[in-house]
Amino acid sequence: MNRERVYLFDTTLRDGQQTPGIDFSVEDKIAIAGLLDDFGIDYVEGGYPGANPTDTDFFAKKRTRSASFVAFGMTRRAGVSTSNDPGLAALIQSSADAICFVAKSWDYHVRVALGCTNEENIESIAASVGAALAAGREPMVDCEHFFDGYKANPAYALACARAAFEAGARWVVLCDTNGGTQPAEIRKIVAAVVAAGIPGERLGIHAHDDTGQAVANSLAAIDAGVRQVQGTLNGIGERCGNANLISIIPTLMLKPVYADRFQTGISAENLAGISRLSRAFDELLNRAPEPQAPYVGASAFATKAGIHASALLKEPQTYEHVPPESVGNSRRVMISDQGGKSNFVAELTRRGIAVDKSDPRLDTLIAIVKEREAQGYAYEGADASFNILARRTLGRVPDFFTVDSFRCMVERRFDANGQLKTVSEAVVRVTVDGETLMSVAEGHGPVNALDIALRKDLGKYQAEIADLTLADYKVRILNGGTEAVTRVLIESQDGAGNRWWTVGVSDNIIDASFQALMDSIIYKLVTNREKAGLAAE
Amino acid sequence: MNRERVYLFDTTLRDGQQTPGIDFSVEDKIAIAGLLDDFGIDYVEGGYPGANPTDTDFFAKKRTRSASFVAFGMTRRAGVSTSNDPGLAALIQSSADAICFVAKSWDYHVRVALGCTNEENIESIAASVGAALAAGREPMVDCEHFFDGYKANPAYALACARAAFEAGARWVVLCDTNGGTQPAEIRKIVAAVVAAGIPGERLGIHAHDDTGQAVANSLAAIDAGVRQVQGTLNGIGERCGNANLISIIPTLMLKPVYADRFQTGISAENLAGISRLSRAFDELLNRAPEPQAPYVGASAFATKAGIHASALLKEPQTYEHVPPESVGNSRRVMISDQGGKSNFVAELTRRGIAVDKSDPRLDTLIAIVKEREAQGYAYEGADASFNILARRTLGRVPDFFTVDSFRCMVERRFDANGQLKTVSEAVVRVTVDGETLMSVAEGHGPVNALDIALRKDLGKYQAEIADLTLADYKVRILNGGTEAVTRVLIESQDGAGNRWWTVGVSDNIIDASFQALMDSIIYKLVTNREKAGLAAE
Repeated sequence: MNRERVYLFDTTLRDGQQTPGIDFSVEDKIAIAGLLDDFGIDYVEGGYPGANPTDTDFFAKKRTRSASFVAFGMTRRAGVSTSNDPGLAALIQSSADAICFVAKSWDYHVRVALGCTNEENIESIAASVGAALAAGREPMVDCEHFFDGYKANPAYALACARAAFEAGARWVVLCDTNGGTQPAEIRKIVAAVVAAGIPGERLGIHAHDDTGQAVANSLAAIDAGVRQVQGTLNGIGERCGNANLISIIPTLMLKPVYADRFQTGISAENLAGISRLSRAFDELLNRAPEPQAPYVGASAFATKAGIHASALLKEPQTYEHVPPESVGNSRRVMISDQGGKSNFVAELTRRGIAVDKSDPRLDTLIAIVKEREAQGYAYEGADASFNILARRTLGRVPDFFTVDSFRCMVERRFDANGQLKTVSEAVVRVTVDGETLMSVAEGHGPVNALDIALRKDLGKYQAEIADLTLADYKVRILNGGTEAVTRVLIESQDGAGNRWWTVGVSDNIIDASFQALMDSIIYKLVTNREKAGLAAE
Repeated sequence: MNRERVYLFDTTLRDGQQTPGIDFSVEDKIAIAGLLDDFGIDYVEGGYPGANPTDTDFFAKKRTRSASFVAFGMTRRAGVSTSNDPGLAALIQSSADAICFVAKSWDYHVRVALGCTNEENIESIAASVGAALAAGREPMVDCEHFFDGYKANPAYALACARAAFEAGARWVVLCDTNGGTQPAEIRKIVAAVVAAGIPGERLGIHAHDDTGQAVANSLAAIDAGVRQVQGTLNGIGERCGNANLISIIPTLMLKPVYADRFQTGISAENLAGISRLSRAFDELLNRAPEPQAPYVGASAFATKAGIHASALLKEPQTYEHVPPESVGNSRRVMISDQGGKSNFVAELTRRGIAVDKSDPRLDTLIAIVKEREAQGYAYEGADASFNILARRTLGRVPDFFTVDSFRCMVERRFDANGQLKTVSEAVVRVTVDGETLMSVAEGHGPVNALDIALRKDLGKYQAEIADLTLADYKVRILNGGTEAVTRVLIESQDGAGNRWWTVGVSDNIIDASFQALMDSIIYKLVTNREKAGLAAE
């Protein structure tokens, strides 16, 4: 079996940085380059040395072990020699292994943006590639606006690509810079470039997601001959983003139409780390992972449907396009489905809660879950609350402590300086081992005050929850009006990076929040004991 | 120019409901069907009458004006007559114009999930289509797992499709149920179906996004001949979601490779409402719109400072794949907002607020709006708050009354009978014409208590707000944690059926709610005066 090699080029640190709201520090860049390098990406494009202090700093050292470390920059300016172009000098002085030059390939942009002749642009491409080669760097050229340029003036777009190829560029990358090209057009134009004499093993594709087809455009280009694919982690990038490598890689490696023909630099073992990679990157961006992301999303292998759920458990391969384990994800059959007892037992087992199918408490649990879901509890999004409810109903959660009462107060009034001021205060009364503890706290709003007061003094349990923090807080009103039923979802995390969701429902937002906060604390105490190998006390 | 018609089929209310975390009430379904109908969708699939009380209720009446109203259900069970199948009866008794039957077309699933013979399944398809036709409904058949089934047993998959076609199904829909099929495979298999004698104008495509290619798969199927495309708003749906109609429709209508060949039921004018449609749907789901969504995302036409920005402003068409106005979106260049005063003046005029372009208060207003939007105020969804802010800044809102202070208290404790009980109480101190009025109220939760107390006694204005009620209340947390910034949106209505939205933002949910409640009352007082033909007092 002689499979052709497809090379993976990541531009998260360069084009990904064009995403509105995303700005990487040098430390961020180092961390991300490390993730990409460990994963097995071939090329890590780090930025634009010389263009800004962050990128210049980042390129002061080589930041990858195995991956080729790539600097991005413009081709030599028209009318200066390569030795007199400061931009080019910054690229060559950097610690990059490879240099990716961005070159115009649409004659319109040569005229408007560069203000030089078509011939001068072609000379710049050739001279820049030559300078990189002379400096011992691997040269490649991003042909900007290639597809739009080809539609407007095919001869000139091809001449630019050919100049790069003939000067010795390892890769000539065809870019759909504006993102509007359709897969069938990509396929046709790539085929024309190959037919014009630039072999596919020297061509790359750089696609954007402006019509939601960046992944399809990248794969269409590979079908048509290119052997390098550029993209970003989780598809970040300017406007609608770049091609999402996290979606492309599993398709290349797991779908027979690609896997039978191609190989990448990523092992099957590393592929099983791709869900973790995707989440680690979101973590670094401090944003919630997209649950519906292909392959890696929390919902990617989730089933809610009644009709599919029981068949799925019997023969998963007939309802799953790839095995979830192959991408480090897992199957989720949602608690809320009607699938019946055996699903339920399977879900409990997966959570380490053993129960006999004939145990009457199991029927009680199913009844409680159904009733609560009808009230608005969303256990599918609050696994830790489900866990606590199941253990409690099956008699396995100790009464760690009880909250005898709480009181929240929000007051808005003019302070001594005549300024309007809103103060929130909460008082909580807890009993631990027969001892009554009272705590009071102020906070930003009543829920925050209650959270702080509740976790201020839990007696002998206090040390165990010291590293608990709240990562996210979501409120959903389940029907209209200010007297509506409110659902609160809380995400907590601990010092070891574990995260869990809990839920509370009430017509009173404070009550709903209190329930979710309590579940979060209890969950932490229960899992601590489990890890320590203790049965429930 | 003779363009072929492509029909748009929306399954947001049926397959979209399979999204983890999404559960529509009858009211939600009515609102969404209205949005789809107004937009010009051809088919609105509403759910599964008979399967659950919500869907049975929803199908008690026809819920669309122009769009065909579609019920979804199983084909007749094997071994019973059509008149003895309660599922089929529920479909036929519903108010649907069309019935979409889901039928197995992979022999493996016929055996495992239906437990009948291949022939019995084919008989069920034909009999069900016949029963719908006899009842005067437009029949269509979703061939579940068609592409996987075709790969495993092409003859049987084709036989199922042919049975539906020959029995008179208006549409035979080829479903990529597991979502793993690649565009090139879709193209090849659709071509084979057409070659086998089912004409493209009777075929549909139903794609899922498990490899991030649902949009590309849908368009590939249209290229290959199908003339109906199924999808959902914003691509919601089971696992990774269904094909996103919000991405597919602009591509069909704006990209020459499609627009030159095809037409849809949507006018260019309605297409310019697609960004609003997408956002309205997210609003209804109470979730933040995806900024990077193709065509409609806030970032879809955004450029971060740098090489592209100034060229973009000179010649936008060379950096934008379609004009943002065509989809009701707008260009965003993120260095400084060039949008300018004249837009703003136009927006004010539209609201009946006249202001001179040289009025310095206009600059103040623009600055305040920008600053507040950066803090999280969403004036786009809270027109009444924008209205009040504009009038106030331009000096046209009287100080009807002032709230000197308020206090909310939530207390949870055991009552005299030993029952846990949560009580919410609010006290408000208002000054009207120099007179101080104090009101106290209990409510369901602190916001409800505050709302009641605030509207309990406003002195001489009390009669004017007697018919004000709160129709909806939405909370969104703008960043993580219980101390996060909270945005509250409130919808109010009066006895005449007028409705208006107001907004409040604070790190304290009570404060945010108070702002929105105040704006709502002031708005009512201002519009009352306007209607009475009075200038501001």
